[in-house]
Amino acid sequence: MENRELMQQVKRWVEEAGEYIKTELKQVVKVEQKSNRSDLVTNVDKGTEAFLVNKINEAYPDDLIIGEEGTGRDVSTTDGRIWIIDPIDGTLNFVKQQENFCIMVGIFENGKPLLGFIYDVMKNEFAYGGLETGVYLNGTKLDKPEDLSLADGLIGCNVGMYSENYKHSKEIASAAIGVRMLGCAGLDFLSVIRGKQNGYISNLAPWDFAAGTVLAEALGFVCRKYPDSDYDILGDRQYFVVATPQTFSDMQKFF
Amino acid sequence: MENRELMQQVKRWVEEAGEYIKTELKQVVKVEQKSNRSDLVTNVDKGTEAFLVNKINEAYPDDLIIGEEGTGRDVSTTDGRIWIIDPIDGTLNFVKQQENFCIMVGIFENGKPLLGFIYDVMKNEFAYGGLETGVYLNGTKLDKPEDLSLADGLIGCNVGMYSENYKHSKEIASAAIGVRMLGCAGLDFLSVIRGKQNGYISNLAPWDFAAGTVLAEALGFVCRKYPDSDYDILGDRQYFVVATPQTFSDMQKFF
Repeated sequence: MENRELMQQVKRWVEEAGEYIKTELKQVVKVEQKSNRSDLVTNVDKGTEAFLVNKINEAYPDDLIIGEEGTGRDVSTTDGRIWIIDPIDGTLNFVKQQENFCIMVGIFENGKPLLGFIYDVMKNEFAYGGLETGVYLNGTKLDKPEDLSLADGLIGCNVGMYSENYKHSKEIASAAIGVRMLGCAGLDFLSVIRGKQNGYISNLAPWDFAAGTVLAEALGFVCRKYPDSDYDILGDRQYFVVATPQTFSDMQKFF
Repeated sequence: MENRELMQQVKRWVEEAGEYIKTELKQVVKVEQKSNRSDLVTNVDKGTEAFLVNKINEAYPDDLIIGEEGTGRDVSTTDGRIWIIDPIDGTLNFVKQQENFCIMVGIFENGKPLLGFIYDVMKNEFAYGGLETGVYLNGTKLDKPEDLSLADGLIGCNVGMYSENYKHSKEIASAAIGVRMLGCAGLDFLSVIRGKQNGYISNLAPWDFAAGTVLAEALGFVCRKYPDSDYDILGDRQYFVVATPQTFSDMQKFF
């Protein structure tokens, strides 16, 4: 199957998952705590992951899958094709706001980014694609955004890192023209790839950065373990940065 | 004229102003700095203020007007009817993102809140009304949201105040379940009155809080100069808080 056909197939699955989420939002959502009071999971996160995992398993039984809500935590090789799923990124926003969350799917092949999907369900903004296919937003191909410097744009920053100035992150954010905190990594990636923020620094699990990394790298952005080493799609939570090349270079001057 | 008719009239003006902004966004926007590099004004801010001031002056020549972009800075009495306008709240977002900004109009009569209007132009979310008319979002009447405690919801906080823990604001934000920074006071007010955030702490000029205060007080929220004194619609920039009664009460325990 061509990458373009695969892109269209997964796009439809993610849209169907979005319809499922909107239907579930009309009913009472069951919320559970995970590691702490702001780390939540709902029956809808679980249902969405199960829906996507089922589609992938049926169509591509040999592919590996890692999902935020428990799928495939024992994956230990990047050989072959790996799907990395965050069924609802921004679950706290989902629970408290019923918006400002997204579905994310990243596909890697032999450790290399293949296709990424970020769908802001309630705003109906859907970015998808990769290096070979190009990156699209609701059907329109995205160009490489301007290579803005740190001082000339907005930046997203994890509140905990900002609060502690972890590895100069507060100083870096303060050197930008403004800082934004949205509570949803996928929305920060969307903002970056659309040229609305020139960077984002956070502490992310692979399902938080996989989809965004495929899209961002395809458009020429830098994606690194923060401040400057290779990210690991099989690793635990890691400090992470996505930025325009110039913004990334400006950040490195703080170290 | 009845309050309800006035509400409908101003709603139409603000919608027309929104159409003007969307048209101007298709052309090159001229940006100037005001007090610092993140305090911007554009030809569209000025054009929107001029449009609204003109409508008010034609219909209500005896009313006083205060606008962010220079209208009526010499107003020194709260007698009669005063209109307080922020033509584009979130100008930095407007310039860098072409979204996440809003038009705000607050009307006070003899110092008391009468009608408020907050229009998120690009998302087409329009909240308007007051104590007598009720508060509406895109035509649907808003109920008083649940009286959430500080620990049970999200809070918006000004990044500078958070950064310095100004008057315990960082500790207070950390006691909430999460903190959000949107770069647009009007969007925080919209989020609060819709029950999606339980509070917002910032440093605001009257045009930043006038519209939101009318809407929030009509729905039973507490609006105070932060941490706890009367706000001043003729004053300079002031520390400001809007919150559910329970969240406000929880905040006071930090002092």
